[in-house]
Amino acid sequence: MENYSDAPIGVFDSGLGGLTVMREIMRCLPDENIIYFGDTARVPYGSKSRDTIIHYVEQILHYLEEQEVKAIVVACGTASAYALEAVRHKVSVPILGVVRPGVRAAAAITKNGKIGVIGTEASVKSGLYESLLHKINPELKVCSVACPLFVPLVEEGLWRDEITTLVAKRYLTSLKEAGVDTLIMGCTHYPLLEETIREVMGSEVRLVNIGVETAKVLSRILSERGITKKTLDAPPVYRFSSSDAPEKLCRFGEYALSMTIPEAVRISIEDY
Amino acid sequence: MENYSDAPIGVFDSGLGGLTVMREIMRCLPDENIIYFGDTARVPYGSKSRDTIIHYVEQILHYLEEQEVKAIVVACGTASAYALEAVRHKVSVPILGVVRPGVRAAAAITKNGKIGVIGTEASVKSGLYESLLHKINPELKVCSVACPLFVPLVEEGLWRDEITTLVAKRYLTSLKEAGVDTLIMGCTHYPLLEETIREVMGSEVRLVNIGVETAKVLSRILSERGITKKTLDAPPVYRFSSSDAPEKLCRFGEYALSMTIPEAVRISIEDY
Repeated sequence: MENYSDAPIGVFDSGLGGLTVMREIMRCLPDENIIYFGDTARVPYGSKSRDTIIHYVEQILHYLEEQEVKAIVVACGTASAYALEAVRHKVSVPILGVVRPGVRAAAAITKNGKIGVIGTEASVKSGLYESLLHKINPELKVCSVACPLFVPLVEEGLWRDEITTLVAKRYLTSLKEAGVDTLIMGCTHYPLLEETIREVMGSEVRLVNIGVETAKVLSRILSERGITKKTLDAPPVYRFSSSDAPEKLCRFGEYALSMTIPEAVRISIEDY
Repeated sequence: MENYSDAPIGVFDSGLGGLTVMREIMRCLPDENIIYFGDTARVPYGSKSRDTIIHYVEQILHYLEEQEVKAIVVACGTASAYALEAVRHKVSVPILGVVRPGVRAAAAITKNGKIGVIGTEASVKSGLYESLLHKINPELKVCSVACPLFVPLVEEGLWRDEITTLVAKRYLTSLKEAGVDTLIMGCTHYPLLEETIREVMGSEVRLVNIGVETAKVLSRILSERGITKKTLDAPPVYRFSSSDAPEKLCRFGEYALSMTIPEAVRISIEDY
């Protein structure tokens, strides 16, 4: 296909947390065009069932394929854990989630073999982190904790707040007590709480930002397939869309991406 | 229509908070059959836009009409504030929301003319409480505060918890300082936080439970129209459905309704 390499990368999340993954892709692959979709009309996914999450992800994949993306990043811990394997065969472009890159990084980093995982209720319930970590090394001790209030706290902008610190202490104490030396932040909202999480866990615990790891894997996939962007004289184009309240995406995106988002388009995702 | 009076009352909410309204209807109208629907696949509505909320409510009304209900209660503060007037003409049975009954009660209760309103971001932004209160009495002072974290705290079961108290203090301080003597709990989740809210506001402030007021109005409408249940020899039938994770409804319902919910049905609400 002509100019196929110049096609955008599609990045989506249940809401706005995936913008932290987009940020890492922009840093790692600064020339690439990106289209972001946030399913803000149906956020959060973390408290929903597997079937519902798969159904929602299928609709988003139809939308992104219509936009002729060359690769798709599932920038949502819950959707990666629940839906990725179920939908992988349905798309014709490379698709990757945030779970496997995060898992591989954590397994490489840990020294004492004790890894913590935090995520939404659904992500933790899926058991995917444990099973992938144990595939790499059956000796690893994995301790997982669901943190259902972190997403609403982030979406409310309480990134540094005594309420958030209190909630973080509640969720993270058992991980500290378990002596984990590596903690996978298994939800793309969590990098916005990184300072608080670091404060509670202590600076000796290594935090794995799944967005950073995913951007590295994406970069490798694009080069291996020879589809990194070829036309480098034009600046990258970033497009934003969401299923509800695009102005909220613009506002949130300014913080998450440290750039002005002049426009976001509203998409009727149910029609896909 | 034969046996029309024995048809169920349809009650719905964005999620599970509406069960607090169902509880009050069960107390006030103990013979009536009720069918409850919670849109748990798309909860919460409170952070979504008006158009999206109206669209979701229309789908639910189609579903409830198919169940041949004799009346519909919009047991969701956000949907009542945003969608009720837009959809009222589309249904053939009496339909009522929780906003107007709450407003009328508050206006009757207040002694100092200072009324507080708490609700979701969307409810507060709608301005409906203020405008209805001022229609009753233009002299009333109304102070509204959005409490976006209350719904996730309730859904996580943190009804009595130091985190909830801290969040409540944050949200309610300005209302205390404004000297309100009456507080409309403008979201059907909030009665589950009533003890915490009372503790923070002080026992001299009267709390308006919109579910209690709505049940009274519903009772009056059924009698006025002559459609209260006629067949009184059979116990009432309660049916439950949701757009996702019906087992969560069963679990939550046991607390909210103080009864065992043996079964809840999952509905593909997008198809309506």
